[in-house]
Amino acid sequence: MTVTSPLCSALRPTLTVSAGKLTPGDVTDIGMKLSKYPHMATTKGDEDLVKMILDQWKDSKIGLDEAKEERYDVYLSFPKADNPNNVEVVLANGNKPFQSELSEKYVTEDQADPNVVKPYAAYGPSGNVQGKLVYANQGKLSDFEALSKIVNLTGTIAIVRYGGAGRSTKAINAEKFGVTGLIVYTDPKDINDGASAESQTYPHSWYMPPSGVERGSFVETFGDLRTPYYPAKNFTYRIDENDIKGRPPIPTQPIGFGDAEKLICQLTGAAADPSWQGGLSCTYNVGPGFRTDGEYNGGDVHVNVYNYAEIRSSANVMGIIRGSVEPDRYILYGNHRDSWVHGAIDPSSGTAVMLEVTKILGTKVKQGKWRPRRTIIFGSWGAEEFGLIGSTEFAEDYYSKLRDRTAVYINVDISVFANATLRAQGTPAVQNVIFTATKQVATPVSASLSVYDNWIRHFNRTSSLHGKLIPRLGTLGAGSDYAPFLHYLGITSMDLAYTYDTSKTSARIYPAYHTAFDTFDYTDKHIDPGFTSHQTVARTAGNVLLRLADSLILPLGPVDYAETLENYYNTAETQFSAQLLANGIQLVPLKNAVERYKKFSEALDKTISELKNTEETPLRVRMINDQLMLLERAFINHFAFPDKVYYRY
Amino acid sequence: MTVTSPLCSALRPTLTVSAGKLTPGDVTDIGMKLSKYPHMATTKGDEDLVKMILDQWKDSKIGLDEAKEERYDVYLSFPKADNPNNVEVVLANGNKPFQSELSEKYVTEDQADPNVVKPYAAYGPSGNVQGKLVYANQGKLSDFEALSKIVNLTGTIAIVRYGGAGRSTKAINAEKFGVTGLIVYTDPKDINDGASAESQTYPHSWYMPPSGVERGSFVETFGDLRTPYYPAKNFTYRIDENDIKGRPPIPTQPIGFGDAEKLICQLTGAAADPSWQGGLSCTYNVGPGFRTDGEYNGGDVHVNVYNYAEIRSSANVMGIIRGSVEPDRYILYGNHRDSWVHGAIDPSSGTAVMLEVTKILGTKVKQGKWRPRRTIIFGSWGAEEFGLIGSTEFAEDYYSKLRDRTAVYINVDISVFANATLRAQGTPAVQNVIFTATKQVATPVSASLSVYDNWIRHFNRTSSLHGKLIPRLGTLGAGSDYAPFLHYLGITSMDLAYTYDTSKTSARIYPAYHTAFDTFDYTDKHIDPGFTSHQTVARTAGNVLLRLADSLILPLGPVDYAETLENYYNTAETQFSAQLLANGIQLVPLKNAVERYKKFSEALDKTISELKNTEETPLRVRMINDQLMLLERAFINHFAFPDKVYYRY
Repeated sequence: MTVTSPLCSALRPTLTVSAGKLTPGDVTDIGMKLSKYPHMATTKGDEDLVKMILDQWKDSKIGLDEAKEERYDVYLSFPKADNPNNVEVVLANGNKPFQSELSEKYVTEDQADPNVVKPYAAYGPSGNVQGKLVYANQGKLSDFEALSKIVNLTGTIAIVRYGGAGRSTKAINAEKFGVTGLIVYTDPKDINDGASAESQTYPHSWYMPPSGVERGSFVETFGDLRTPYYPAKNFTYRIDENDIKGRPPIPTQPIGFGDAEKLICQLTGAAADPSWQGGLSCTYNVGPGFRTDGEYNGGDVHVNVYNYAEIRSSANVMGIIRGSVEPDRYILYGNHRDSWVHGAIDPSSGTAVMLEVTKILGTKVKQGKWRPRRTIIFGSWGAEEFGLIGSTEFAEDYYSKLRDRTAVYINVDISVFANATLRAQGTPAVQNVIFTATKQVATPVSASLSVYDNWIRHFNRTSSLHGKLIPRLGTLGAGSDYAPFLHYLGITSMDLAYTYDTSKTSARIYPAYHTAFDTFDYTDKHIDPGFTSHQTVARTAGNVLLRLADSLILPLGPVDYAETLENYYNTAETQFSAQLLANGIQLVPLKNAVERYKKFSEALDKTISELKNTEETPLRVRMINDQLMLLERAFINHFAFPDKVYYRY
Repeated sequence: MTVTSPLCSALRPTLTVSAGKLTPGDVTDIGMKLSKYPHMATTKGDEDLVKMILDQWKDSKIGLDEAKEERYDVYLSFPKADNPNNVEVVLANGNKPFQSELSEKYVTEDQADPNVVKPYAAYGPSGNVQGKLVYANQGKLSDFEALSKIVNLTGTIAIVRYGGAGRSTKAINAEKFGVTGLIVYTDPKDINDGASAESQTYPHSWYMPPSGVERGSFVETFGDLRTPYYPAKNFTYRIDENDIKGRPPIPTQPIGFGDAEKLICQLTGAAADPSWQGGLSCTYNVGPGFRTDGEYNGGDVHVNVYNYAEIRSSANVMGIIRGSVEPDRYILYGNHRDSWVHGAIDPSSGTAVMLEVTKILGTKVKQGKWRPRRTIIFGSWGAEEFGLIGSTEFAEDYYSKLRDRTAVYINVDISVFANATLRAQGTPAVQNVIFTATKQVATPVSASLSVYDNWIRHFNRTSSLHGKLIPRLGTLGAGSDYAPFLHYLGITSMDLAYTYDTSKTSARIYPAYHTAFDTFDYTDKHIDPGFTSHQTVARTAGNVLLRLADSLILPLGPVDYAETLENYYNTAETQFSAQLLANGIQLVPLKNAVERYKKFSEALDKTISELKNTEETPLRVRMINDQLMLLERAFINHFAFPDKVYYRY
């Protein structure tokens, strides 16, 4: 973008506001406060953070123009505190040679907090079921299909490892084959690069200890489950609990790999396929039941789940800096606030970045030194871990305004998975602004190595449009709060984070993910010592935010979109055209549409690049910006999936 | 609206461009050309008009900036020309004492045109069915319920009169009670103020002759039936014909009241309820079957339908005048072009008005004397009579652009039903601009009697907001091309026409509606002699169009909307609150929403009325206009009727 104008130039210096202002102490201090106590959605720990964020955003010296909490009455699932879920082996004589750990073995004092929620599968049904144990790999449909050919699965309990299929999908698949209960664990092969001994794991490394259990929401959709498509207000019609779709149909419980090892290594039956073998210290047999020469001989596995669900008040904290020129155009920036336990990484690493960015911008605003062209709206979302609930309710509540006025949503959830490189995901339109910003921000390792130059080493692709190697932008799934904005509203979105060197680890995600070990100590010692990657993400996200909020012309790339559409088209043609043609379906109309899009996006780009100062009438600028803002909305098709209208992008 | 600005003032004189420029000859001449031949959708007569309109709009002296035809491949239903549909009475001995007229008895030469389509129920199924005749009033569900209590309806043929229920609804209701065939006719009581003799009807008056048959589309939805929600292009997926919903499930045929009289007056059985009696010269009995003392004694009625459906290319003709200041804001103005037969009133009275308005504006544009602030798009829609097809396909094809950029859709279909008064329908937002315009336009009867002052005599209400009697705006159903724009896209819409003095006739609609008698001669002699009401509608619609296209601030009334919402709320509270409360449903949240809307609409109105020239920055004006333009979109709820997504407003 080479457009400058008197207005734009006057604001240009503010584009550097995000750089060089952060001291390590800032993020460290905020991160420590945010992760001091468990703050699962709607608990006291969560409500304390609501107050903390509100206090900062309402501060007369560093606050925003306006801050408020917005509450929704949402349907959440918890384990019973006085009757903990567990997995047992029960012998014919009634003896119980195995009972799963009721909580993680703590490493630091804060983990002893009574508010650490015991492991459970949120939204899984209560129930006490028993049967012979089988090992079903990742619980994919193909896994159960293969297993059912050698084992009668009716009435069995299946143990599966995380990965390969969604959490609830594993249980839904299992039930189809007559399995009555499900146990899920994280295999050290998938998360620890194989490390499984206590001496190899946290606190000695970043790897997950044997007692670590990944918690999670076991539903596939997003938003409050009882008020689909409508904000969960007190007056909103709620569907019956029994009409909720996508929940596990059978009792389901997650356990640590220490416990999983005891169960799996006692299994009888045929050895599982080599691809099913994991990192535990034995050959994985498929069952059913236990080895006759072991201590669990003849034993049934019992899965005992005592979950309950209730409607709770969950808060979003919203902060606003009003735009000076176009107050009715919004740049959204958000992250969730709730964690499963202490959540130092997930989500507090992102919340710390957001609070630092708001402090810097808020200070400028309160000093009267700066105000963005467009309105900036910050959102600290509630109950994301239960299914992106706070952000989805917000999107449903303000549907029309957000749809008509929002240019971009920036999501910074986990800001630092690891400290090797930036990882950016987004729709093709945001590539441009992220490239520009990352060229201006230095990496933690060297002032002369930009985030861009480091990024391109780790993630890259050859671009026919740009005629060279460029950083590779990832696509957005539905794993964080950008999902309702992108998939439901069609708002241009991105997610920014620092992450691993993928050549050095095969971990599915950072090992302490959703466990009681995701603490400040873990972060400080093993993820981002010195919190310098946190700073780098703050500078990068701040720079992107300011460019979007302040630039005369929105720095979005319609032609980058054309390149991606062409790539998608070429893939479709290569992979499917023969099969489609055999069914009488031609790809020609699609190709024409892509070419038409390309032609018009190039014309728009030319218009923008040739804009002279003299031609920059406010209305001409607004018309161009409206085209850029609304571009993404054109990819919404309400009829794509009649049963899943949230996914219409 | 009292806002003026240098820009607005400069354009203000053009607001009078629509007045005083029309001479009677203009509309008369156009009307004659438009209705000279039958021009049912996609026939040669229709295609000739496509060329005629294109020629005018492309004319170098009176044309528009751009004109083009846009074609869709749409699914239409026709009767077989060589095997005409009919209704017969067949006696036990095979004699046929009655056969329905195959076509109307012509009054003027042009009605002898071989392209006059024979009467049929479009989209009704083919079939030959027979049974005893019953009279079922209007074919409402309640009619069949009442009738089934005294007559066994299984295997009968029902004759019903138009009115009370939708065309296809009558057949759908009938089928539920075992009726195997349906005959529909127009009762002289409902259309002719009772007049039924040839001497009382056209050419002697405006009343429908005994042989007149109302044709029509017998489907309940709108748009091309095989491509719901998508434009009917050659590459569009088409649903199977058998999956089309809402069509008559049994053979259905319309006949004239001359034929209906022969059948009904021979019916045996109990006398129908007094409310079921019509204007024919006998007591209506309900059947089943014919009187034993009549010539049809023992006879069965046969309904023989030979309809077929096929995909035809139908054109919209689009004309554009580009806006000078905000080319990306659209005012749409449209009417369908296709008729059932000659269609002098429906739709040529509206087409004549549109062509006259475009000639006046086109002349100004070609002379370089004027250009509107916003872009004006004219649409001559194809295949409206088959179910608003052309306009719906256009709305589907340009969905995103229209949704984001269109301020108002103006529909002028039948422009003159009769010559007594204006009748305006629309959403509350358009009341304001119609009031302003109608105060500036004189009635045909007197230069000193404004359309407004005449209108308020015929249609009025007391407004608490305005504190006085004001003209009463009607609401928009789904009877013409505004339906896809309003109900599917949520675009502010209106429909304008001249109509009857309702104190002088009880006719359901003008009597020649959808018959072969809707000709130029009929119009000239009985509907609008001198075509002065046509001129008045042209001046009114032109004035409204120019105000919308040229005003600095869109002349829409957000507070008028508040008054309507309050009225709706009060009605709901009065009629339903006890019943709702008994089911645990409170109206308080709805009341709060209405009050909230009122508060914010008043604030917006205040902002507009207090706007000073010095504050009229182009962006401020645009922001206000965006709010006004998008207001109506906020009333769209995609989830309101999952099976009828077209109706989501």
